[in-house]
Amino acid sequence: MAMQHKTSILIFLLFLFGFFLSMTVSVADESEDPELTECLEECRSHPHYDIGMQKRCEDKCNQEHPPGKWDPRQGRGSGQSRDKEDPEQRLAKCRLNCRRQYSEHGQQMQCQTKCEETYKHERSSNPQRRYEEQEGEREEDNPYVFGRERLRYEIQSDRGYVKVLDKFHEKSKLLLGIANYSISLLVANPRTFVTPVHFDADCVCYVVEGRGTVTTLRKGDRKSHGIRKGDVFVTQAGSVLYLISSDLRQKLVLAKFLRSNSLTGQVSHFYAAGSENPESVYRSFSDEILEAAFNVPRDRIESIFSRQWQGAFVEASEEQIRALSRYSTEGGRWPFGESRGPFNLFEKDPIHSNRYGKLYEANSDDYRKLGWLNLRVSLANIREGSMIAPFYNSRSTKFAVVTEGSGYIEILCPHVARRGPRGSRAQRYREHEQERRERRYREEEEEEEYQEGPHYRRVRAHVSRGTVFIVPPGHPVVEVASRDQNLQTICFEISADRNERIFLAGRNNILRKLEREAKELAFDTSAREVDAVFDAQKEEVFLPGPGARRHRHDRGESEEWGGSESDDASLSELLPEF
Amino acid sequence: MAMQHKTSILIFLLFLFGFFLSMTVSVADESEDPELTECLEECRSHPHYDIGMQKRCEDKCNQEHPPGKWDPRQGRGSGQSRDKEDPEQRLAKCRLNCRRQYSEHGQQMQCQTKCEETYKHERSSNPQRRYEEQEGEREEDNPYVFGRERLRYEIQSDRGYVKVLDKFHEKSKLLLGIANYSISLLVANPRTFVTPVHFDADCVCYVVEGRGTVTTLRKGDRKSHGIRKGDVFVTQAGSVLYLISSDLRQKLVLAKFLRSNSLTGQVSHFYAAGSENPESVYRSFSDEILEAAFNVPRDRIESIFSRQWQGAFVEASEEQIRALSRYSTEGGRWPFGESRGPFNLFEKDPIHSNRYGKLYEANSDDYRKLGWLNLRVSLANIREGSMIAPFYNSRSTKFAVVTEGSGYIEILCPHVARRGPRGSRAQRYREHEQERRERRYREEEEEEEYQEGPHYRRVRAHVSRGTVFIVPPGHPVVEVASRDQNLQTICFEISADRNERIFLAGRNNILRKLEREAKELAFDTSAREVDAVFDAQKEEVFLPGPGARRHRHDRGESEEWGGSESDDASLSELLPEF
Amino acid sequence: MAMQHKTSILIFLLFLFGFFLSMTVSVADESEDPELTECLEECRSHPHYDIGMQKRCEDKCNQEHPPGKWDPRQGRGSGQSRDKEDPEQRLAKCRLNCRRQYSEHGQQMQCQTKCEETYKHERSSNPQRRYEEQEGEREEDNPYVFGRERLRYEIQSDRGYVKVLDKFHEKSKLLLGIANYSISLLVANPRTFVTPVHFDADCVCYVVEGRGTVTTLRKGDRKSHGIRKGDVFVTQAGSVLYLISSDLRQKLVLAKFLRSNSLTGQVSHFYAAGSENPESVYRSFSDEILEAAFNVPRDRIESIFSRQWQGAFVEASEEQIRALSRYSTEGGRWPFGESRGPFNLFEKDPIHSNRYGKLYEANSDDYRKLGWLNLRVSLANIREGSMIAPFYNSRSTKFAVVTEGSGYIEILCPHVARRGPRGSRAQRYREHEQERRERRYREEEEEEEYQEGPHYRRVRAHVSRGTVFIVPPGHPVVEVASRDQNLQTICFEISADRNERIFLAGRNNILRKLEREAKELAFDTSAREVDAVFDAQKEEVFLPGPGARRHRHDRGESEEWGGSESDDASLSELLPEF
Repeated sequence: MAMQHKTSILIFLLFLFGFFLSMTVSVADESEDPELTECLEECRSHPHYDIGMQKRCEDKCNQEHPPGKWDPRQGRGSGQSRDKEDPEQRLAKCRLNCRRQYSEHGQQMQCQTKCEETYKHERSSNPQRRYEEQEGEREEDNPYVFGRERLRYEIQSDRGYVKVLDKFHEKSKLLLGIANYSISLLVANPRTFVTPVHFDADCVCYVVEGRGTVTTLRKGDRKSHGIRKGDVFVTQAGSVLYLISSDLRQKLVLAKFLRSNSLTGQVSHFYAAGSENPESVYRSFSDEILEAAFNVPRDRIESIFSRQWQGAFVEASEEQIRALSRYSTEGGRWPFGESRGPFNLFEKDPIHSNRYGKLYEANSDDYRKLGWLNLRVSLANIREGSMIAPFYNSRSTKFAVVTEGSGYIEILCPHVARRGPRGSRAQRYREHEQERRERRYREEEEEEEYQEGPHYRRVRAHVSRGTVFIVPPGHPVVEVASRDQNLQTICFEISADRNERIFLAGRNNILRKLEREAKELAFDTSAREVDAVFDAQKEEVFLPGPGARRHRHDRGESEEWGGSESDDASLSELLPEF
Repeated sequence: MAMQHKTSILIFLLFLFGFFLSMTVSVADESEDPELTECLEECRSHPHYDIGMQKRCEDKCNQEHPPGKWDPRQGRGSGQSRDKEDPEQRLAKCRLNCRRQYSEHGQQMQCQTKCEETYKHERSSNPQRRYEEQEGEREEDNPYVFGRERLRYEIQSDRGYVKVLDKFHEKSKLLLGIANYSISLLVANPRTFVTPVHFDADCVCYVVEGRGTVTTLRKGDRKSHGIRKGDVFVTQAGSVLYLISSDLRQKLVLAKFLRSNSLTGQVSHFYAAGSENPESVYRSFSDEILEAAFNVPRDRIESIFSRQWQGAFVEASEEQIRALSRYSTEGGRWPFGESRGPFNLFEKDPIHSNRYGKLYEANSDDYRKLGWLNLRVSLANIREGSMIAPFYNSRSTKFAVVTEGSGYIEILCPHVARRGPRGSRAQRYREHEQERRERRYREEEEEEEYQEGPHYRRVRAHVSRGTVFIVPPGHPVVEVASRDQNLQTICFEISADRNERIFLAGRNNILRKLEREAKELAFDTSAREVDAVFDAQKEEVFLPGPGARRHRHDRGESEEWGGSESDDASLSELLPEF
Repeated sequence: MAMQHKTSILIFLLFLFGFFLSMTVSVADESEDPELTECLEECRSHPHYDIGMQKRCEDKCNQEHPPGKWDPRQGRGSGQSRDKEDPEQRLAKCRLNCRRQYSEHGQQMQCQTKCEETYKHERSSNPQRRYEEQEGEREEDNPYVFGRERLRYEIQSDRGYVKVLDKFHEKSKLLLGIANYSISLLVANPRTFVTPVHFDADCVCYVVEGRGTVTTLRKGDRKSHGIRKGDVFVTQAGSVLYLISSDLRQKLVLAKFLRSNSLTGQVSHFYAAGSENPESVYRSFSDEILEAAFNVPRDRIESIFSRQWQGAFVEASEEQIRALSRYSTEGGRWPFGESRGPFNLFEKDPIHSNRYGKLYEANSDDYRKLGWLNLRVSLANIREGSMIAPFYNSRSTKFAVVTEGSGYIEILCPHVARRGPRGSRAQRYREHEQERRERRYREEEEEEEYQEGPHYRRVRAHVSRGTVFIVPPGHPVVEVASRDQNLQTICFEISADRNERIFLAGRNNILRKLEREAKELAFDTSAREVDAVFDAQKEEVFLPGPGARRHRHDRGESEEWGGSESDDASLSELLPEF
């Protein structure tokens, strides 16, 4: 009974705290409070706490050390504040503890499952989340945003995994037009060989982190290329492909954008190597076919194709990695040779850069193979507390994967228009203008008979590492980094040919081009008043975010915050998994 | 009781009259009967008649003055006979009367609604219509023809409207292949500004009537072009677009052909200007986003984006129009400069022209941007009482919008084959040939066991201003102008590359190319007999229509009937609305 | 009672025999056993046997003369063993007998219907078939293979027929991606004219056998080309097309690959000539339209368009054929002139050829019009007892039609994965490896919690003349000729651009390119052991099939077995119909 009581109070306090949080909009920054940090650390390291107890301990810490208001003067870079304790990260830490605490695989697994159960509960009772739900921004209502949990395991093993996004159109009919595109993530542990596979899709890979080698077999030829963070490379449908994650400490993480070549739009993987799970394609042919094909008796064939019990991710020795890396084709890297190998996004100057963010981009001019897919690849790095100005792509559909940090986005969606959420502001203004309108137009009532013109629903969603979101062409979108983390997204934009990013605010706001008279007619006010609003924003593309103080970045901080390679593997371990 | 009785008789007489009409096929030409005209005029101008009374009055006139037989000698041009009293036109006049009778908007609206209710009833009891239904040519059975009523309002206001055709495939599965195309109509009153909008579709616009200016914002650039009747211009998906209807008396009417770029195939409009209905996209972002994006407090933003109560169609002063027209980019008009601006169909010689019709055409050679859409735009002007020879497009699907006049079309459709309507002629002939066949082939009964080969259903439909019809590739079609009005259609033909119009009758009948022996084998008769039929028609492309007397056009009439710009605004007011 | 008893025994024996057959895999070769041949001949020629009795008689023969083991020394070419008695061929012979026995058409039809009923039953009780069903290889489970019976009659007459495959996606959702492709077969008797038709599809035709002339009408022009076995020609959507089958004894057989241009994906035929069935398109227009279009009274039009009672296939006199053939455009044949006319696959050297098979191929370099469709046409002739090595197409979907012989195929299919059939071999090996694995990895149980990676279902099917099968891109496939007949397939491969055939066994096995270390990692064994398996097969592309004795083809047989034209019309009559 006492226990129950305690829990109720706990939840109530949690809720209050969440409400407070969402009202002030300033996100708690626990790691800065040394007492809170210490408290949390104690919970985690307590030798006799199980997962449930650990969580209750952490909750208590959070209550006892409520975060102070956000101090804009402290201007923190993304690196330092990464360990902010959102439920995802607490889950990640919990999992990490499992791996440290137990040496046996079975026990590790059990422990991790418990972590997930525990924090899944917390995630759903997360006040931030509940606030969002009240606003009608639950993921289910949102056709364009796919949380990390929408990625299902295609392959999963001790040494790595492949996760694939559900087919887009199965979430929403609005996405039928991109049914043959897909997003997948590959994560390979340090010093791991990913066995040969081909699939029925063209693939654009972005190296999120780590380093290694990619080898493709095609036209009877073998080509190997070294890969590292920031690299983009394209593999053709049907090419046999294998990888090495060669770093000693850091995982190799690839974000893949796939355009299926198949009859169904779904992507299939065909593994060639000698394992049972994933099954080698060879194992599926009849015995007599294999005997005839290889011209050897079946027992020798079986001994080859059933041996690799590790599956698709195989531990490699240092010698094997060194040997395989040696084959890598040199001279193929941009900008020194022909751009046949990977192209590194960070090697080219960003196409937009200011103190609020940087935009890197590669198109078919930079990397010929992107032209085959009519694709543009871009990486937006929005500094903490900043945002990208509202804009739309004139032709492209954009597939974005958040690779670092967190924040939120708003997409305007004409297809799921609802009148509810729009009401408040419209009504407020309606009252102001009531009088003025009545003077000019008597039959307010009659007007109600008119057909309603288009309205837009605001699709708003929290995004963090591993979130995938889609922005259809023409749809205005805005992306905002959280106050304490840079938001980095890798974007794959299809129909790149003749596409244009059109900005609706900032110095390059397209509407600033309206003639004086057009402004007057469109806004029913003097052009001077319109200009006063349109010209107030002096920045373009990347802007200070909501609530940000202007002077924050004026203290001459180093500009070295974007695009740099962070090699701190232990830190990456702390990040929520993809 | 007496009233009911009267109505029954009325309906009966109406039916008799309709039956008579459909039998003689000669369309009544009421306006020529001065007594009838006077009678009708009296009904309309009666100061105390309400709509219902007015209609009954008109019905009575029509009964008392049954139209005489059609006099072919009178050979009237399209202009003079436009006021023929089909129910649609009576509805248009009724609406016009509303606007004249009432000065207050609310009363006008009420009056117009009553008009619609009244004439909707008449339309359904229209004998012409009933005749068509008996022939199985109701619109519901007809997958390829969309009456004016299938266009729904996207935007509607006092000063103009935008109407969009229902999604094609929602009418019939046969149209699934064109799900991402759409047709829409924009009508703007004289001296009206159409506020900035972008949409997720490439758009080909044809100026049906009126004049004005179109401005597009793209790549940070503004381009304005003057437009007038006959102009074709293309706007790219995502471009911000606004228009001026600059004429003092005539409306600006655009027929738009849209190829959606969106994920669903549906076209969405995104309005930028400061109105509530249609909603400005800006109004849908969160307040904090807008404050950050514009760097001004929210009340100033609201005052800009909520002011334009007129919506998308805004009254413009003469000075504003003059000023905006002045920005129009000069030198861009075909054939004097580079063809970057609109292309006027009437500035190029028609590709076919004879006394029965004219065919104007523009393809990517004339106007480069049509090549992006692989499109051909053509305008067929079929003279009253004439027809276009049966033909098909080898590759193109044709989207046609009737812009003037009326008539009917027949499309042969293999997908909706029915045996019924085909029966009569087949049976008649079968009796003639019975004997001959029995000589050559005894087992007539047995033959019935054979699989039935393909048969075609004749899709026949009355078309008039505002009707949209689709002709799939390969499907033979014929278009016939009514006896007293030219039939003008603007056609958008997709898959234009390598397309060919192939004629099945007339001097360029493709089958005239058959070798002598092939004719004999195909028709089982002497080649001489086949040639006698194939060679009898000396004209090509445009032919005299059914029932037309050959000598009718031989009196040396002026050829200035097609493609001329009619500036009579009051006349256009009398036309049925689109 | 006695009868029932007898039948049961018969069926039991049949089953036993079937089981024996399927175990030894050596297919019975009845024609070699002179006693059996005689016995069967007697059954068929018995003057008083009806179909049912004939069948029972044949069954008895087969029991009394069980076939001996297959003698590899006898190495028969495809020609000599064509009359092997599979149920399809027995049906064909039965039909032939009908035509010989009865002179009246009606009786012939009745007789043939009886044949079909009789042998349909046998086909389902065919032990070979039952064996297949036990293996889960029934056609219904198999999305990619379409037996002859899936082709339905579009046109059927005494002198020829057109058969069209059901729409692909109606069989399986897996084929939605090829919904606008189709396969059809046209068979025209000797000396037959196929009347003019156009359809809403681009068409690639392969001449399976026979000779004749094809004429197309397009752009007001007529072009005729002689055609013969091995010719490939392309006709554009909308072209009017007609054919002559000019041989005196042999039928003209075309395999057509169609890419629909229509809105639905379905192909429609529009016949122009003067027949009722198929209906001439002219007959569907209204009478008044036709009168106006042709400018002649309706009775003369009717007399032209209703006369050809023979329908689409019309008997032609020798003079007519000679005359029509004379128009054939000369100088257009590859390699002497511009390749505008048909291209003959056999005129170019095969791209792969060894004693086990030949592969002929034409792409857009050889025949420009194939480029329009992004198509590659190839003909694989696999010698009896041989196979094509396991391979996949990197981008192309392959549509294959078996034109001669029989055999079986295996396609690996990831979409219809089932665990059942895979079990046996996997389990066997698991036992061998049990010990080794336990040493290295204790938590076998725990591993079961992991997600299952991809597995493949083996789709295996018997194929013979008239079978159509589809191989999606990336899907490994193997094709094996039966032991006594060459297997010839004509393949239409779409998405030909940048496509590559990638082989998984044989000297050009793509995996032989793996580096030494990659082999070790992928197969978890020494590279030496892997090479021992990969290098054992010295042949490439075409290999000796399962169970084939190596020395069989070493006796210096003539190589003239492939691609030769067999003119033996009576033999072709004995073949199962398409």
